[in-house]
Parts: sequence; structure tokens; C-alpha cells
Amino acid sequence: MSLIVQKYGGSSVSDAEALKRVAARIVATRNAGNDVVVAVSAMGDTTDDLIDLAHAVCENPSEREMDILLTAGERISMALLTIAIRAQGADARGLTGPAAGVVTTAHHGKARIIDVTPGRIEKALADGEIVIVAGFQGLSHESKDITTLGRGGTDTTAVALAAALHADVCEIYTDVDGVFSADPRVVPRARKLDHVFYEEMLELAASGAKVLVPRCVEYARRNNVPIHVRSSFSDKDGTWIVGESDQGEAMEEPIIAGVAHDHSQAKITVVGLPDVPGTAARLFETVAAAEISIDMIVQNVSAHDTGVTDISFTLPANDGAKAQAAIEAKRSEIGYEEVRYDDTIGKLSLIGAGMRTHSGVSAKLFGALRDAGINIEMISTSDIRISVITRADQLNAAVRAVHTAFDLDADQNEAVVYGGTGR
Amino acid sequence: MSLIVQKYGGSSVSDAEALKRVAARIVATRNAGNDVVVAVSAMGDTTDDLIDLAHAVCENPSEREMDILLTAGERISMALLTIAIRAQGADARGLTGPAAGVVTTAHHGKARIIDVTPGRIEKALADGEIVIVAGFQGLSHESKDITTLGRGGTDTTAVALAAALHADVCEIYTDVDGVFSADPRVVPRARKLDHVFYEEMLELAASGAKVLVPRCVEYARRNNVPIHVRSSFSDKDGTWIVGESDQGEAMEEPIIAGVAHDHSQAKITVVGLPDVPGTAARLFETVAAAEISIDMIVQNVSAHDTGVTDISFTLPANDGAKAQAAIEAKRSEIGYEEVRYDDTIGKLSLIGAGMRTHSGVSAKLFGALRDAGINIEMISTSDIRISVITRADQLNAAVRAVHTAFDLDADQNEAVVYGGTGR
Repeated sequence: MSLIVQKYGGSSVSDAEALKRVAARIVATRNAGNDVVVAVSAMGDTTDDLIDLAHAVCENPSEREMDILLTAGERISMALLTIAIRAQGADARGLTGPAAGVVTTAHHGKARIIDVTPGRIEKALADGEIVIVAGFQGLSHESKDITTLGRGGTDTTAVALAAALHADVCEIYTDVDGVFSADPRVVPRARKLDHVFYEEMLELAASGAKVLVPRCVEYARRNNVPIHVRSSFSDKDGTWIVGESDQGEAMEEPIIAGVAHDHSQAKITVVGLPDVPGTAARLFETVAAAEISIDMIVQNVSAHDTGVTDISFTLPANDGAKAQAAIEAKRSEIGYEEVRYDDTIGKLSLIGAGMRTHSGVSAKLFGALRDAGINIEMISTSDIRISVITRADQLNAAVRAVHTAFDLDADQNEAVVYGGTGR
Repeated sequence: MSLIVQKYGGSSVSDAEALKRVAARIVATRNAGNDVVVAVSAMGDTTDDLIDLAHAVCENPSEREMDILLTAGERISMALLTIAIRAQGADARGLTGPAAGVVTTAHHGKARIIDVTPGRIEKALADGEIVIVAGFQGLSHESKDITTLGRGGTDTTAVALAAALHADVCEIYTDVDGVFSADPRVVPRARKLDHVFYEEMLELAASGAKVLVPRCVEYARRNNVPIHVRSSFSDKDGTWIVGESDQGEAMEEPIIAGVAHDHSQAKITVVGLPDVPGTAARLFETVAAAEISIDMIVQNVSAHDTGVTDISFTLPANDGAKAQAAIEAKRSEIGYEEVRYDDTIGKLSLIGAGMRTHSGVSAKLFGALRDAGINIEMISTSDIRISVITRADQLNAAVRAVHTAFDLDADQNEAVVYGGTGR
């Protein structure tokens, strides 16, 4: 008998019919002889509707009460899913995040899970019950207040439960068939990956792939929880996310897992900075103090001894206005001539654990982009990733060119379906 | 400084504007120098919408999960009201029923409050905060599951909090100006009562007055909590519900508090029962086993020695089919000729603590009904109440006739507004 943790998102439980379909899948998993624990998100647009209500009452609602408000959404779907499962003849028990033992920091709105004490879940499993847990929520160990986990919180709940229960697998149900070598909306011949390493998935998630948030993958990696990303509209195998050591040596790995892209970044260039030690520190201290996370940084080489230099960096376009304001406010302290803002950039990232042992990857990448006539504006690299900044309107073409150059395109007869088969 | 507990129902918090208006009233109460604790119901139709969803998933949803589901409604309104109050500059803290210390039996769907441990409320009050409690809910002391309190649950929550905190008053905000001497939709000259005794209010509530449920009044009576029923759309004084001893001897009490009426009853007559000991017991054991509460009972006097008799009783019309089926199922055991069902009856109740010391009340009542040409089908009495059954289509006329006969009609220049002044 296996212990399986499953996660269903809001689009999988959007109405009564969807709830019944998910319930049937859960009961089938149970009837196949498994213990089953489920983490469930709020139905459809519930969370957005509740946020709208709060903003109708107050421009800046307090975070503690927002968490009480928003967690009601997952309680509703948890209760309804439990009811739907029982209606299909199986024993089931619904638990809120706090009741399931999800213990978090006190940081309302984006609390971190610091412990899971799954006593009530284990008791229910021992009683032969399926356990449905309201996702996205926990109890602050300090204040004893309810907290929410932020974006991707139900995925993280599922992985945390799987880790605490030593589950055999954490199945993340979504509306796509798994993780792809590129976004199939951009690259029609993108290939569904059968497996990805945690490190690759972390880089993919950080580079724009939306299927999982990085913190969820990181939690799984640290606790060695195998994740199976799959469609809630089919029975097909999806993508397994596992550790490199789990694969054994015999397996011949492809060099590249996939090509991610990200349209949400912007670039700020600070022109005419004094070319003396401490300039970059002052600039980025200012940005950090505004709680803005930056991604890539390029400082121009002062080829001519002008005494001034330029620094460019990328950041989420959402934070663009805030960052510019912060830098303007410190103009005299930092001492620069001009700030330029550009949100018409795109970021392409090539990711693969095989890069470590294969040389020539970056040369091949740059060659592919050159052949496609695409200019590279910035470059950054990690152990298993190369990212480049292009013009936004060239990004999709760049992704397709790179995907082809690295032999990632699916064979013509591989039927890749994106967006689910059910509807 | 007084401690005031306030209760707001679903119609008082139906949308963002209503929430802001209620928040302003709460903040004004606080700014007048009072400690304030609030029990709040779910917004508008939330509870009905959640019930509909559950029934779309399953015909007979499990009660434990229904309670998790339904309590989400009060959590939402509690969080939003707290947010609205903080937006108006006051310190406020929202607590769920369990967090507020409401401890109940494990009877899902209609749990009873068995204790209130208000430690967290008291701490918040000591910190200068207004406390908003999600009504209608508590925590089962046995199963540690969340429970709901059934109809009128938020009123009962408010009174229980007021009792535990030794509040000076429990204000029940509603969409009418208070408790009336009769339903103003039936009796245009009904008079708002300035005060009613607990016992009178209990009888009024049990006799069809909808403003409060009996259990809430009973809880207040047992703990001597003064209730002030008033409109959330005006600042006028409403109706105080207090103990008789609180009034002192000097006060000249009217004999009658009011006339209640009830269109929701039906009558079952079991014809041709054997006129021997044990017949009534067998009949009413059958009805009780079906969990039907009956109200009035009349057994015909066997004037002629026929060996058979008839028994009539009243019950909620909602339970009519169930009761008939239960009696039919025991036909041979009970031994009767026929069951007749009549849901075209009405019940009028005259209520007043002054009846105890004044004779002639029933004679006056029967005289008024006779003069109005209204036939009485059944009669029952208590210490402070006389109830009669009439034809349903004569009930309103009966109420008006009795109201006038007992000098309850308001003077022409008393402006009684029913249904709220605000909208």
C-alpha cells in the first residue's frame, strides 16, 4: 500500500461538477489500495472575489484579517470536496490547515511552513479515511493566528504534507499534461518531459515556467519528495520531479531539460555613475531597501577613462515604478546622470543539469540566436542555466530557435496536447 | 465605562456599504467610552448559497462537513467587518467562534453552547481593541470539531458572550425598531414595547414572534443578561428585555405585553381511537420517535359511551407529512379509524406577565373573538399566555380584534415605523 498526497488547484474544483469529478479520481486512487491525503485550493475565482470585497471595504486591509478572510475559500472547497467524496461511498475527513498540523511563521500573507505535526491526519488514515486538507493556510506558532502561504501555497502545502507523512509521491494535478521543454503556446513542438531534476525545475520555475513555484520545488528537494505533475483531465503519466541521485548512473541524460521564457521583466539602466568603489553598493542598497528583488546585473566596462560608468539590471516589471522612485529619491547620494526604464524586454533561459559536464552549450546558444537574427542585450549564467535578455517582440522567435537548435522538438508523430484534454 | 456586546445579522452586513455603516456604528460606540464586543452573522444570502452548493454536490451532505462549510460565511463577514473598523481608525481584532472560546456540544448543525472561555476576548479588550466574533459557531469540547448553533445562532452567541463577559447589555441589531405588541404588518397600530420580561419574550418567541429565538432568550434569562433589541438603521431606543425583578415594585405594569400569531402550524386529528388507558401514550410516543415537536393537544370528551375517542394536536406544518407517515406506519399498534390533516389553521397567543395577577383575561379574549365572529377550535394556556386555534383566513382579523380589545393600539399620533427607517 502506498501513501499518495494529491493537490488540486482552483480550476480543478471550479463548480459542483468539477468537485464530483475530482472526488471520483480520489476515490479511485483509494480503491486502488492507496492511502490518500489531498490538499485543495479555493474554488475558481473565490480568492479574487474575496480580495475585491476587502478592497471595497478598505484600501489597505490589515494582513491578519485578510488571512482569516482568504482562508475561508479553501475551507469551503475542502468541506465540499469531503462531502462529494462521502457521497461516492468512501470515508473521508476534512481538516483545516491548522487542524492538519501546518505550523508557520507569523508573516501574514506569505507565511513559511516551519513544521507539520500530522497527528490528526495519521489518526484519520489509521481509521481508513481519506483526508482532505484546506490548502494555502497554517497556524502561526507564535501568535496562534491563521496565516496564508502566498502564491503557490497549496502546492507547498501538498509537498509539506508529503514530506511529513513520508508519502511515496506528491501528485500535483493541474490543467496541463506536465512540464514541457518549452511553453507549447510558443513552441508548438514542445515536448512533455518524463522527468526533471529538482535543480532543473527550480531554475525553470525561477525563469518563468508557471507550473510550480520555486519554494514548493525547494521544499520537495530538501525533503526528497518525488513530485508528479499531471493533468486532472486525463489518466496519462505527467512529469516526475526527482533528485539526480534517484536516476542512477546508467541513465543517459539529455543535456538540456528545456527553454523557459519570461515576459514579466523590465530593465533599469542608471547612466553616468561615478566609476569609483562603492557606487554599485549604494545603488543596490537603495533598491533592496525598497524590497525589490533584482535578477540580472550588467556594469559597463569603462573602456575610456571617463570616470563614469552605467549599470543595468532587470527586475519584475510590477516593481518598476517603485524602483525608479526609490532611485530618484537617492539621486544626490548615489550621484548619477539619468535613469532609463525599459519594459519591452524578454528573458530566455536554457536549463539542464547536463550543462555541468558538457562544454559548448553557451556557444551553441549564442550561435542559434545569431542565426535567427536576434540581438542579446544581457547574459547571466548559473551552474545549470544560461539566461539572455532580448527585445520582447523577438522573445518567442528566440525560444523556438533555441528549442530547435538543442534538438528538443518533438517528433511529428508525438501528440502533445497542451491545456488539458478534458475541455 | 460599560461593556457592550452587539449582534449584527446578515441583512445588516449584506455588502461593502452596509459593512462600512455597521463599522461606523461600532466605532461610535467605542468612542463613546465603551468596551465593545460584536457577534456577526454571514453576509446576506451567503449561508443559503453555500447550502445550495453542498446540495449540488450531494443530496445528504454529512453534518460535520456542512458545519465546516457554513462557518466560512461568518468568518468572511467577521474578517471584513474587522477590516472595515480598522479602516475607520479604531483598533479591532477578529476572532472565530472557537478562538473566542465558544465551547459547544458535538451536535453538528444544532450544537448547544455549554461554556464560554473568553480569555482571548478579555486580553484583546485589555489591549484596547474592539473584538469581532464570528457568530453561529463554536468548538465541540469532545471532538474538537467546529460546530454550528442552528437557527438564531448568532443571537445566542451574542448573549452567551455577554453572559461570560458580564456585559452591561447585549444589543441585538435588526431591521425593525424593536419588539411590537403585534406584527405591524397585521396590526397597523401595533405599539413598540419599551420593555418586555424574559418570560413574556420567551412566550412571544415560541408563539410566532420572529425577532428572537427562544433559546437565546432563555440563555439571557438564565444568566440575567439585559437584551436591547433595536434597529441598525436608526439611533432610537428599541425594546429592552429584562427580568421582572429588575423593574422594581413602583412600576405599573400593563397586563398584556402583546399578541403573537403563527401561520406555520398544522393540525392532525386521529379519529376513532380506543378510549382506554395508554392510547394517547402510544400515539405520542410514535410522534416523538419521529422527532416531531407538538404544541397543543385536545382529546374529545367521550360524552356517549362509544368506547372510542378522537385526539387532535398541532405541529409545525413542515413536519406534517413525516408525522402522518409515522402514524400510518403504526396503524395496527395504535388502533384508530382515520387520520385527518389540516394545515389551514392559525394560532393566536395573548402574552403578558400581568395575567398572573389579573383574572378575567381569558373571558375577555373569548368575548373579543366572539364579537368578531371568529370560531375557536382549540385552546391552551400557560402561566402568562393564552393561545387559541382559529381558521387560517380569520387569524389576522382575530389578532386585530384582540389587540384592540386589550387597549394595545397605539395612539394615532404615535409614529410606529416597521421595517426600518433607513431603507
